Amino acid sequence: MQESLQSFTDSHKTLLEDKMREYVNQLEAPSIIKESMLYSLEAGGKRIRPLLLFATLAAFNQDTKIGLNTAAALEMVHTYSLIHDDLPSMDDDDLRRGKPTNHKVFGEAYAVLAGDALLTYSFQLIAETSAEDATADAKLAIIKEFSKAAGAEGMVGGQVADIDGEEKQLSLPELEYIHVHKTGKLLAFGVIAGAILSGADEEKIHLLTEFAMHLGLAFQIRDDILDLEGSVEMIGKPVGSDEVNHKSTYPSLLTMDGAKKALVEHTTLAKAKLAETGLNTFFLEEITDMLAVRNH
Amino acid sequence: MQESLQSFTDSHKTLLEDKMREYVNQLEAPSIIKESMLYSLEAGGKRIRPLLLFATLAAFNQDTKIGLNTAAALEMVHTYSLIHDDLPSMDDDDLRRGKPTNHKVFGEAYAVLAGDALLTYSFQLIAETSAEDATADAKLAIIKEFSKAAGAEGMVGGQVADIDGEEKQLSLPELEYIHVHKTGKLLAFGVIAGAILSGADEEKIHLLTEFAMHLGLAFQIRDDILDLEGSVEMIGKPVGSDEVNHKSTYPSLLTMDGAKKALVEHTTLAKAKLAETGLNTFFLEEITDMLAVRNH
Repeated sequence: MQESLQSFTDSHKTLLEDKMREYVNQLEAPSIIKESMLYSLEAGGKRIRPLLLFATLAAFNQDTKIGLNTAAALEMVHTYSLIHDDLPSMDDDDLRRGKPTNHKVFGEAYAVLAGDALLTYSFQLIAETSAEDATADAKLAIIKEFSKAAGAEGMVGGQVADIDGEEKQLSLPELEYIHVHKTGKLLAFGVIAGAILSGADEEKIHLLTEFAMHLGLAFQIRDDILDLEGSVEMIGKPVGSDEVNHKSTYPSLLTMDGAKKALVEHTTLAKAKLAETGLNTFFLEEITDMLAVRNH
Repeated sequence: MQESLQSFTDSHKTLLEDKMREYVNQLEAPSIIKESMLYSLEAGGKRIRPLLLFATLAAFNQDTKIGLNTAAALEMVHTYSLIHDDLPSMDDDDLRRGKPTNHKVFGEAYAVLAGDALLTYSFQLIAETSAEDATADAKLAIIKEFSKAAGAEGMVGGQVADIDGEEKQLSLPELEYIHVHKTGKLLAFGVIAGAILSGADEEKIHLLTEFAMHLGLAFQIRDDILDLEGSVEMIGKPVGSDEVNHKSTYPSLLTMDGAKKALVEHTTLAKAKLAETGLNTFFLEEITDMLAVRNH
């Protein structure tokens, strides 16, 4: 019988969160930096990137535990990016998921350093994946993809373009550049890493990457819609904050109706790419549907 | 005939600086982030960490070019740490090596992100070392050591302890904890990486690590002495700034005479460890002597 996405999500979230806590706790480091790292790692969130990695492993009928270290690394890098993005010199956010941001609790210096420490540790966790779970070549391939997805060619580049585009009227290609890099690349990495760990061929990796890029855009469009239509309880930050900040969004460029159509289009394309793989993609499809209708 | 340290340094600095420029230029990323990364990479400096790596390869009679990617990674991580340390929320420095600090030129947001991008890219460069230059297992071993040396258990942990110890009277063990972690671990990494690339056994790696820890302490004691005795032209920052900032230093804990004695002691111990290795350590000895008497 097919396990439900809810059950798959719950069990893997617990596995992941226990592992991240264990990894941070075993660091021989000043306690304040470990507290700062754990505060943001444990602030909740959908754990969508690790979940994509686990769901990809499931699509290849692999034991999902072989992805646990890489999943922890991925969530740590996502978390570091949130800590740095929230800094006063960046988005200057006081709240994240309804809780005070890292620098509001620990101060800016420890927030910068907690981000640096999470980023640095993440590569160690991938390198320390046991030999039974991944070959040395697979680990190195994952490290290269991870660097590209998280660095200047990926997430950091997207954040730079985002800052650069503030207070400007962006074109749709400019807005897509930002989201593909700022959000899409790291979402796609989860899928790519799952495929590499499964020993997938180039063609399957290519199809799964295309799936993930559509999923990433759908995810971001839904985010923009929620920013206008959601409530502060649901999304953990003030409703309409993008509008107040004069940020270009999908609804502002495409109208709300156009944004909703684009959301459906990218969701449909994402699922079409999945179907092409011929894999057992039940969880990946369910995640795609879940992200398209989520309320937070 | 033995090549001089000066000639060895000059040729390897050129090799390294060309490679770092090439690597950053080939990034497909917004030009502002590449400019910010290059600005700090090209701000000069002694390149002492890469030099230790090259000198260690020379001690094993290896072609030093096999360490070029790791050397570039190491200098990038050192550079990222300077960018983040100089931020207003950290040391709040306006000058570094006599030039405006990164955030003074590019603003805080791009300074944080340039640091993040350098740190992230560094792991990619190690992973992309060619198969002729390093085995997959050697690259993974280097990545693990690099993470430990740079992260919460190393440099970041040292920076945390340094911030924590500001305005406090530190004991000598507390001061050593800071310097061993903030400076020593990354210096030692250069030596350890050179040894791993040379296929060294555990015993040689252990001796070379001990050498590097003594060298790192000598390096820091010399820094503290220079801060009191140097001139602003020589060291590129105001003389006596540690005193103004009420920082605990070796001279403040040991007296100036005591600090100078400790410098000689650590230099002597460092060279004794080198002698024990039985390797061709000419350049490593010369670097040790050079650091003990340097004026900047």
